[in-house]
Amino acid sequence: MKTVDGTSIETIRRLPAYYGIAQKFYAEGATYVSSVAIASHLNIDSIIVRKDIQQIGIEGKPKLGYEASALVDGIAEFLGWNRKDRLILAGCGALGSALLGYSGFKSRGYDLVAGFDTNPSIIGTQIHGKDILPLSKMIDLCLRMHITIGIIAVPSSAAQSVADLMVKSGIIGIWNFTPVPLKVPQEVIVQQEDLVSSLVILLKKLEKEMA
Amino acid sequence: MKTVDGTSIETIRRLPAYYGIAQKFYAEGATYVSSVAIASHLNIDSIIVRKDIQQIGIEGKPKLGYEASALVDGIAEFLGWNRKDRLILAGCGALGSALLGYSGFKSRGYDLVAGFDTNPSIIGTQIHGKDILPLSKMIDLCLRMHITIGIIAVPSSAAQSVADLMVKSGIIGIWNFTPVPLKVPQEVIVQQEDLVSSLVILLKKLEKEMA
Repeated sequence: MKTVDGTSIETIRRLPAYYGIAQKFYAEGATYVSSVAIASHLNIDSIIVRKDIQQIGIEGKPKLGYEASALVDGIAEFLGWNRKDRLILAGCGALGSALLGYSGFKSRGYDLVAGFDTNPSIIGTQIHGKDILPLSKMIDLCLRMHITIGIIAVPSSAAQSVADLMVKSGIIGIWNFTPVPLKVPQEVIVQQEDLVSSLVILLKKLEKEMA
Repeated sequence: MKTVDGTSIETIRRLPAYYGIAQKFYAEGATYVSSVAIASHLNIDSIIVRKDIQQIGIEGKPKLGYEASALVDGIAEFLGWNRKDRLILAGCGALGSALLGYSGFKSRGYDLVAGFDTNPSIIGTQIHGKDILPLSKMIDLCLRMHITIGIIAVPSSAAQSVADLMVKSGIIGIWNFTPVPLKVPQEVIVQQEDLVSSLVILLKKLEKEMA
């Protein structure tokens, strides 16, 4: 199993959903939330939920489950959501614009600071309240604000040159929404995003059900 | 490890990326592509690549690697990309519009047939060449075209009612981009999408590198 520091990638992927459910229970006045309740909301096995939560060091109480507030705080701390990480985005087309407006960043404590683009008709404007800046301002902004994480949502043909610019800007974590394999220095981490990868999982599950 | 029919979820998630790289090698005239080459493009361990490809029953040749065309065909077949699955989308705001224009669907053989919305100012128009229809047309279109997969990208407040409508339309696989846990009949499969889940993996890897 592939892990990051002993925690499996699939566990890390599922934690934001557990957080959302625990938060909902807590907001509705519940003190405890059980692995069975979380599992049933997500259509997964409760054993998976228990193992995942155990991995991040949170213990439940027999018959009651997890303290909702402790679970919310524990997941947020494990995922670093208290650090208020700041990000920039390059490429403010359809996908980039959607990301600029994505409420899931702010609600988890991420601060998407600005978007960068080459299109003169949108530079200087705002999209979903975020300033759109020319690429030439990236280095200055990132170094000044100590921003180390960048999202690439540009056309494939521009992906490598934007990655190079991000590296020069001190970015060490790149979330790449293009299918282009990026060449970056060894210390820079690229997380490849492929929206289709969730769709193929859905279709594989359907295939199994139909079999 | 969580699996679908014996194949791990993370393996299924990675296969589209292998497909893209094998296709690129093939288009550039290479007959073979090695696990090391694939791994280095994705910044992952080549052992993972070998295990993943072994799981779908494709064998490499010592010192040469995989036949690029066989790998492309094998992954496409395993992922069902030859079936030309058809999808519909509900919610044509920023995220939904981006999905309507997402080139990664068509290039993998998915046909996103139409978008549905309640906004009269976009109904009857096209977004990225796709017709935008009123929700009232969903049942008829899905039954007539035998569409069984739906994407939900509506505001959270409308998520459950749109899911109910999809179920009535014969949809049995829902790809849910809202954070709302959907109540659906047991035979309907919901794949929960949370864009932040990839970002948390990137940040966890960075954290480990910095430690």
